[in-house]
Amino acid sequence: MAAEGSVGLVTANLEHFADPLALRNGRVLPSFELVVETYGELNAARSNAVLICHALSGNHHAAGRYSVDDQKPGWWDLMIGPGKPFDTRRFFVVSLNNIGGCDGSTGPASINPDSGVPWGPDFPQIHVSDWVQSQAMLADRLGIDIWAAVIGGSLGGMQALQWAAQYPERVRNCVVLAAAPKLTAQNIAFNEIARHAILTDPDWHSGHYSRQNAVPTRGLALARMVGHLTYMSADGMSDKFGREIRENDTDMGSEDEVVFQVESYLRYQGSQFSTRFDANTYVLMTRALDYFDIAGDFGGDLTRAMSEITARTLVISFSSDWRFAPARSKEIVNALISANREVTYAEIVTDGGHDAFLLDHPDYSGLLSAWMRQVTV
Amino acid sequence: MAAEGSVGLVTANLEHFADPLALRNGRVLPSFELVVETYGELNAARSNAVLICHALSGNHHAAGRYSVDDQKPGWWDLMIGPGKPFDTRRFFVVSLNNIGGCDGSTGPASINPDSGVPWGPDFPQIHVSDWVQSQAMLADRLGIDIWAAVIGGSLGGMQALQWAAQYPERVRNCVVLAAAPKLTAQNIAFNEIARHAILTDPDWHSGHYSRQNAVPTRGLALARMVGHLTYMSADGMSDKFGREIRENDTDMGSEDEVVFQVESYLRYQGSQFSTRFDANTYVLMTRALDYFDIAGDFGGDLTRAMSEITARTLVISFSSDWRFAPARSKEIVNALISANREVTYAEIVTDGGHDAFLLDHPDYSGLLSAWMRQVTV
Repeated sequence: MAAEGSVGLVTANLEHFADPLALRNGRVLPSFELVVETYGELNAARSNAVLICHALSGNHHAAGRYSVDDQKPGWWDLMIGPGKPFDTRRFFVVSLNNIGGCDGSTGPASINPDSGVPWGPDFPQIHVSDWVQSQAMLADRLGIDIWAAVIGGSLGGMQALQWAAQYPERVRNCVVLAAAPKLTAQNIAFNEIARHAILTDPDWHSGHYSRQNAVPTRGLALARMVGHLTYMSADGMSDKFGREIRENDTDMGSEDEVVFQVESYLRYQGSQFSTRFDANTYVLMTRALDYFDIAGDFGGDLTRAMSEITARTLVISFSSDWRFAPARSKEIVNALISANREVTYAEIVTDGGHDAFLLDHPDYSGLLSAWMRQVTV
Repeated sequence: MAAEGSVGLVTANLEHFADPLALRNGRVLPSFELVVETYGELNAARSNAVLICHALSGNHHAAGRYSVDDQKPGWWDLMIGPGKPFDTRRFFVVSLNNIGGCDGSTGPASINPDSGVPWGPDFPQIHVSDWVQSQAMLADRLGIDIWAAVIGGSLGGMQALQWAAQYPERVRNCVVLAAAPKLTAQNIAFNEIARHAILTDPDWHSGHYSRQNAVPTRGLALARMVGHLTYMSADGMSDKFGREIRENDTDMGSEDEVVFQVESYLRYQGSQFSTRFDANTYVLMTRALDYFDIAGDFGGDLTRAMSEITARTLVISFSSDWRFAPARSKEIVNALISANREVTYAEIVTDGGHDAFLLDHPDYSGLLSAWMRQVTV
């Protein structure tokens, strides 16, 4: 028996696409695979499908567990399941690992059919619109003409927004969490530092580390530390760590010296991440973030871009998110209002920072639940 | 002829201190040298001396030029000179490189007299109160019983505050710019990431890089990139760089690929810094920042700590400084008010971020000038 509210045991499926995917940058991916999980049942009218788009380091495993002794559920188990905001008693929830990822879908670690060796850094740069196109091919495969809702946070929110603008006839409702119409220079700079840490790791080998049986774990750990730190708020960190000292102050540090709890926490996060994530994927994903600019195809006019959207849209920001601040969400909302579109906006008051879109908060889950109950199936 | 407002040509002097310096952490520095510059003339009453305390990457060269074809003046030439806020027609301005530094004073690159080789990572960790003690020994050497004013920004502001609390009888006026009574967990985390970049550079060699004829330039450059980015404000970066693209978007990056102008700028800053600064000094200086907690010796009671101060104090914060936010300066101000001390506070409205204390702004220099004119000599 699954725990109440859980989707229970789940399995991932691999979908192979033999048709080529023409990419935004002019290159063509000859074929590709997507690893996919679904929760709930597609109804007879095929009108209750909901797409979950993942963020920078996410994947297809959004809910449930793989076995009864699986210690950790999917990354958004909080929100997906019977009685939860994305209620699997009503909705057929689809979650995938995006192209370029490192959790089973075609990406830099996959074999390049032209060379017979892993793509590595030669994997084409994917843009948000390419992901949306590949997700539309997945929808075709699943027999879903129209999504009841497309949902995502951060880079996932950019995909949801892009979906609603790129395929307005296929999206009835759109949920954009902790996102922005494009990154700021400061945001790009944080991504650049993360990439620079990877690219200057001697084990990077110009991205061909797998050929050298090397892994740029130092750079990847540092990249994650930078990212993770910026996804938390200053107040949240003060509450969580304060200035708690882990060891006595001695002299200058050896490599192992960790003085404050926050240092220990960040090192652990970086180290864990560096063993599970692919460096080329990290570079690709952060570049996709940097390049995203939904108004770019409309001469920089966000209202014109938002005019493409016909979906009923929910935009949520988080008060302490300084990486994708509430002001950035309001740009989307104001452009939708200017375009005379149906939009609901809320700023959740929390000290959870950017990561708050992944965290439990009664106002947040309550709002998502209430809004999703209005989604007809 | 010096340009108007310039102190003209300057020279640095090396002061040798044969007396041991007992450090806060229990160790003793058997002897030390300080490299010092002075601008203006000490008056007969020895009552017009002003001390400038430098921040993380600063040094003794605060004003003037070393030769007529010297391209760059000292780091605070904007503020020091005839007619400037620290007016050398009235004041005798003293500036030094702190112990642990890498610009001429005794530090990790100096020879350890016990071993005959450079201290490297065995150099004792210096605390802000140790710097103040060494600066007091310098004052004794220069025949300065009482400073007309002690001034600093950021880590320098912490020294100014510590001076006023540690030697209240020797400080008549105190200027604390862009500082805080102690760091937040977020601040410590940024320093930790910078240190981690250095400590995981394969050229770090546990800090003994000079023995290996190596320099951890990659780590040092990354550390500087992180620091530099956090010293700017998001709005300031948007104005300066926007999302200006440097090269065409191609595929995934080689090590040389730079797409946005802000990336190019940060890489240049990091690279420059890594050739001029010592990695052990960077570790030491950021640790000194992390450890600073002026209320620590008073059971965490900042008002009690501020009660030690008798100096007239000026506290200035900068609206867009998110590393040492105005709220942190106000903690100092409120504690001084609670302690019934004489304090002036101003928040300068600027998009210059933390670095604003080094930048030109009419409200800022005007306020400093007006306030310093009230300093009797």
